[in-house]
Amino acid sequence: MEASLEQIAQSLRLADRIAILSHSSPDGDTLGCASALAMTLQGMGKQAKVVCSDPIPRRLSYLFDGVEQQEFEPAYVISVDVAEPKLLGPATEPYLHRLDACIDHHRSNSMAQYASLSYVDTGAGAACEIMYELVRLLAPITQPVADSLYTGLCTDTGCFRFSNTTSRTHRIAADLQELGCRAAQISRELFDTKSKGRLMAEQQVLQGMEFYFEDQVALIVIPQSLLRETGIDPSELDGLAALPRQIQGVEVGITLKERPDGGYKASLRSTEYVDVSEICQGLGGGGHVRAAGCSFDGGLEEFKRLLLDAVGPALKK
Amino acid sequence: MEASLEQIAQSLRLADRIAILSHSSPDGDTLGCASALAMTLQGMGKQAKVVCSDPIPRRLSYLFDGVEQQEFEPAYVISVDVAEPKLLGPATEPYLHRLDACIDHHRSNSMAQYASLSYVDTGAGAACEIMYELVRLLAPITQPVADSLYTGLCTDTGCFRFSNTTSRTHRIAADLQELGCRAAQISRELFDTKSKGRLMAEQQVLQGMEFYFEDQVALIVIPQSLLRETGIDPSELDGLAALPRQIQGVEVGITLKERPDGGYKASLRSTEYVDVSEICQGLGGGGHVRAAGCSFDGGLEEFKRLLLDAVGPALKK
Repeated sequence: MEASLEQIAQSLRLADRIAILSHSSPDGDTLGCASALAMTLQGMGKQAKVVCSDPIPRRLSYLFDGVEQQEFEPAYVISVDVAEPKLLGPATEPYLHRLDACIDHHRSNSMAQYASLSYVDTGAGAACEIMYELVRLLAPITQPVADSLYTGLCTDTGCFRFSNTTSRTHRIAADLQELGCRAAQISRELFDTKSKGRLMAEQQVLQGMEFYFEDQVALIVIPQSLLRETGIDPSELDGLAALPRQIQGVEVGITLKERPDGGYKASLRSTEYVDVSEICQGLGGGGHVRAAGCSFDGGLEEFKRLLLDAVGPALKK
Repeated sequence: MEASLEQIAQSLRLADRIAILSHSSPDGDTLGCASALAMTLQGMGKQAKVVCSDPIPRRLSYLFDGVEQQEFEPAYVISVDVAEPKLLGPATEPYLHRLDACIDHHRSNSMAQYASLSYVDTGAGAACEIMYELVRLLAPITQPVADSLYTGLCTDTGCFRFSNTTSRTHRIAADLQELGCRAAQISRELFDTKSKGRLMAEQQVLQGMEFYFEDQVALIVIPQSLLRETGIDPSELDGLAALPRQIQGVEVGITLKERPDGGYKASLRSTEYVDVSEICQGLGGGGHVRAAGCSFDGGLEEFKRLLLDAVGPALKK
């Protein structure tokens, strides 16, 4: 049922033993939401825990410095930044059909229908914009909570660079700065710091960058061997898919990542007009208009050919 | 004389034939200020022009799409984002001793003493934060003026990542977005787009990155030959000095740029505690605590040795 944030706040005030569900392959937005809410609820004297099917990426572990580890059988379950049941993964799926509340900002949200109370605002650049409004209905925002919310804001808006950044995003960032959040340090750690291994990986991948259709398409390949050679964590490869599209004049950037089983996963990004979600749907995948993906079980060259054949006709001459 | 923004606004309302001085080697902040003010004054029916000793970098040329080219002998002169007389360069120096107003945010500002009316706010992350307050005293802010101001905000705060970003910066960004500025497009062009040549240059430079003092110091060299080999504009090298400091654990990043005459210019950046301005002062240069520079007329290896000998003792063991 569609609910107001005040209704969800009221249900949380009355609740205890609260499980907060983050999506699998967690990012700064889902974990920022979850840790902000967990700290707020624990600060109110309630039991609260964050449940996620995948481990917390090392560079986001600071989000949980202020969260107390608590074990209990949940009496209230809320999902944050989770668009679809399949994004919950094995650890959280048992809770799927007893969801008390859902907070999200994805256009494709289908979790809302499972939840007793749901609040989906697709105009929010980050789910943490919504969480900011929710937690301040519950308690004054502390500095660690502000850090968590700022992390989510940054993550989903590319640190205020993407087109989903609105004046609301900036006004919340201003409020969080006034609440003492460590904005500069968080941005630096998330966006301006890379390991030596990541630097090596980036270089190796960029050296092999291929250009097609008069440089309107740039393509990189990330082989499994790259992880072995550079010794980096797979999560450190996250931003690489953004690289091809950064080249001047490139409309479609393609990143082909070898899977452990030998198949390939493609990430497509477009700059201005190509609908990559349509292209990926045609190959059994999906996503957003400017960022989408699909998978392929065959060989690399065959997959490239398939993708380029699909992308070519979508380009302006 | 120290003045309020309203006093400067009033003097501009009464003035005509206004020259706006930007500093040499102009960046998005000085040019954002200058174009915002020029468009505002021209919109009020006044003659106004921007004077700068160096050409406008190509990637910032859009700032002047809405500025009408006007030629006249100035009756009123204002400097924007100019800290010192020597930063004016030959084209603007003649105006130095007849400065009617000065708007700036540099701690080291010495221009104020030349100006009849001066407003220096060192708490502003960008001079465009001050210009925003000034232009709206003069006229309603148009979309092109908002674009110019947003450009300055982005440039000087590393797109809201640096520690000079405050809640005021974000609130002004929010206002500018509501005034229709093309925030996402501007950020993308300024921060997420590079030419193929720049990509090649970056790679070549990174491949030669050297590490010292157990990886606490990273050093890159930019030879003159790089410009020839990659065919890029010298202004495209601008962000390279930020690269060494991005590596995890690096406290001091050093960039050595070969000058056309064969000497070298060093840019030093520190992450947390080393005062690089002190180190550069010891070698005849200067700057800020976290970003400073100095020059050397001798050979590369000798300069490296001098710098590393000065940096070493400043590092924690």
